[in-house]
Amino acid sequence: MTITAPDSVGTLRDGAFGPARSLVCRECGTERELGPHYVCHECFGPLEIGYDFGTVTREQIEAGPRNIWRYKALLPVPDDIEQSPNLEPGFTRLLEAKNLGAELGIAKLWVKDDSTNPTNSFKDRVVACALSAARELNARVFACPSTGNLANAVAAAGARAGIKTVVFIPSDLETPKQVNSAIYTENLVAVDGTYDDVNKLASEIAGEEEGWAFVNVNVRPFYAEGSKTLGYEIAEQLGWRLPDQIVIPVASGSQLTKVHKAFQELVALGLVEAKPYKVFGAQATGCSPVATAYKDGVDAIRPVKPDTIAKSLAIGNPADGIYVLDICRATGGTVEDISDDEVRDAIVLLARTEGIFTETAGGTTVGVLKKLTETGQLDPDLETVVINTGHGLKTLDAVSDRVGPAATIAPTYDAFVAANLI
Amino acid sequence: MTITAPDSVGTLRDGAFGPARSLVCRECGTERELGPHYVCHECFGPLEIGYDFGTVTREQIEAGPRNIWRYKALLPVPDDIEQSPNLEPGFTRLLEAKNLGAELGIAKLWVKDDSTNPTNSFKDRVVACALSAARELNARVFACPSTGNLANAVAAAGARAGIKTVVFIPSDLETPKQVNSAIYTENLVAVDGTYDDVNKLASEIAGEEEGWAFVNVNVRPFYAEGSKTLGYEIAEQLGWRLPDQIVIPVASGSQLTKVHKAFQELVALGLVEAKPYKVFGAQATGCSPVATAYKDGVDAIRPVKPDTIAKSLAIGNPADGIYVLDICRATGGTVEDISDDEVRDAIVLLARTEGIFTETAGGTTVGVLKKLTETGQLDPDLETVVINTGHGLKTLDAVSDRVGPAATIAPTYDAFVAANLI
Ligand SMILES: Cc1ncc(COP(=O)(O)O)c(C=O)c1O
Ligand SMILES: Cc1ncc(COP(=O)(O)O)c(C=O)c1O
Ligand SMILES: [Zn+2]
Ligand SMILES: [Zn+2]
Repeated sequence: MTITAPDSVGTLRDGAFGPARSLVCRECGTERELGPHYVCHECFGPLEIGYDFGTVTREQIEAGPRNIWRYKALLPVPDDIEQSPNLEPGFTRLLEAKNLGAELGIAKLWVKDDSTNPTNSFKDRVVACALSAARELNARVFACPSTGNLANAVAAAGARAGIKTVVFIPSDLETPKQVNSAIYTENLVAVDGTYDDVNKLASEIAGEEEGWAFVNVNVRPFYAEGSKTLGYEIAEQLGWRLPDQIVIPVASGSQLTKVHKAFQELVALGLVEAKPYKVFGAQATGCSPVATAYKDGVDAIRPVKPDTIAKSLAIGNPADGIYVLDICRATGGTVEDISDDEVRDAIVLLARTEGIFTETAGGTTVGVLKKLTETGQLDPDLETVVINTGHGLKTLDAVSDRVGPAATIAPTYDAFVAANLI
Repeated sequence: MTITAPDSVGTLRDGAFGPARSLVCRECGTERELGPHYVCHECFGPLEIGYDFGTVTREQIEAGPRNIWRYKALLPVPDDIEQSPNLEPGFTRLLEAKNLGAELGIAKLWVKDDSTNPTNSFKDRVVACALSAARELNARVFACPSTGNLANAVAAAGARAGIKTVVFIPSDLETPKQVNSAIYTENLVAVDGTYDDVNKLASEIAGEEEGWAFVNVNVRPFYAEGSKTLGYEIAEQLGWRLPDQIVIPVASGSQLTKVHKAFQELVALGLVEAKPYKVFGAQATGCSPVATAYKDGVDAIRPVKPDTIAKSLAIGNPADGIYVLDICRATGGTVEDISDDEVRDAIVLLARTEGIFTETAGGTTVGVLKKLTETGQLDPDLETVVINTGHGLKTLDAVSDRVGPAATIAPTYDAFVAANLI
């Protein structure tokens, strides 16, 4: 499970992980040295990065590049990270969504649109941080189990970085996501099973093979920090302010917990003013273990076998589900779920109102936003951000029977008039 | 063909077109007032925007937003353009391509990657400028004939702006590009014919109907200026310098002429130093009327009936083809073409070396870059930029029989080992 042998961690170069100080157990607080570890030896809790932040100013960040590395002082990456070939993700658009807001009755609504990242999902952020860790740890292979988007991001980032990649996906994954991995790598491996089966296999391989960095397994603590940049960007793009409410999709739950962590860090560092905000989680009913636990008022998540078109969110046994519950409850938010038909409707709704084509994960998030508003869980008078994490071109089949040409005509003006279009 | 009646052009608001002064005939230089006109009344030459630029500084541009509006002082758009809902395209990545450069033997190579624009092609740039013109001219309908990407961009931008859209495409267009238009608009019209047939139909409709702004027909002079921003960005991202060589795909030829115009303007305004640079045009052999004219050493372009997988470049009768010839010849560049198989190879090459998944248009451009280098037309020791104008997810079929899973395995470590992958 180690990438370099334990005693060779001493060969890490100085500043390999920037401001990161150690790995800290999220459950018992035990610290250990930075390395390819993800489980606490004391209590089996998940490890997270602990930092010694120096002074970080808005000016310093604003002078940085137009990608996630503007926040490098807040990430476990070396100071010269921009010099290593990477996909330069992030700093995606935060669009005010007046039409969608009007449709849903929300006074001030923003869409953070991560579908325009290099491989068209937020996963480019986390992979860029994992790639840095893999490089610093001298990994030989850059790998992941994936519900699709992660495979795209790992295969692409690895190609550009010149490191061998192996990506594992459930064999029933959408064709666009398969091609969008295989185009970058020779080693796309389809696995007959659910994502949870694929994930288990990856843990086994990580335990057996030397030199493999599985982005979301043995370098997960580094990987997960990448999602913080979504939170940083939202705050910076709002003019260094936090929103009142934010709606975030939940698969493993990592992204949601890290956006919240980002907001907390910005407050602690004095980069934004402290204020209350509510965090909401979004799931598809066909894979809603966290929403179910929320509604049942329990703390434990009962794993499910996913059955939903929102395949990128189809994690039945979410690693960070319990932390999602904590955060949503503590901030006054909720976790909600919607049907696959509502997911499809929401994809069309977002496209028709804001000109953004999202995948099923974004349909889930926007559809949940709608349901939260209709059911009074979300306050329509408060400033709200919804995150679009992926691109509709990857899940075309979800909508291809809903939309299409209004007419097929001969190339003549008469045929146009006869079609009586508008 | 007018959007507002000629005498109501007086009702334009002050500064509706920013620094634009008039429409100027590209052939005879005759000027006329700004409006929905595209052909010179004297000689039938194409009209272009003429400007009265004030002082424009690097600092002013650098302080602007991270999208094409940072260059608004150089575009025919009002000073308050950021306030009108639009897709905020541009400021895409300029990536140094060390792996691809090494593969091709080019010492210093950059990819300008426009596949991460809002609707995943450079067309978002031109459409944003056309939308501004349509709005200022009080158009009722926002429309286009398209080889695919333009339809995506018009439908999306129109949805966000809240203007009715009608987009016309050849009925044999790739499915992803059809869905990626129909998702945004109720009025996707498939036309049984080539793009050139669709284009002719659009001109007829523009002549018959009141209030229609066809982005690339009657507001084409405004539309076309949007491509200048590609040139501005490349220069700014190189640190306010021009490259030595640039390779650009050619369909109508508009983009290539405008990137050149942008470089000329930057020199004239003192924003970059004057220097020689060579412009190269890229076509697919199955639709290569400009490359053919170049190779034949003639000035006139003979229209062709396209037959190529590079459908977004399949314009058999290119409006700006003669200007492409002029520019490539005058700067010392050339126009080259490659086969569909070379297009497919180049798509895989770019993905495997740089982690960028391009569509057939980008495959054409990268493949031509390769051929130019191999045949000695391009100097491998000079700094070179290649433009990737669109996204591979829109033309999946071009490569879906070339790449795929290396293996399909059971979810066990033994099955993984047995597959003998790496
Ligand atoms: C598009 C998209 N959105 C959201 C998520 C959720 O991510 P997390 O596992 O961090 O909850 C995923 C995960 O694969 C995804 O692909
Ligand atoms: C992806 C792509 N690249 C390049 C072009 C060429 O554009 P132009 O007509 O300006 O030559 C097009 C035109 O549709 C396109 O869709
Ligand atoms: Zn512990
Ligand atoms: Zn003229």
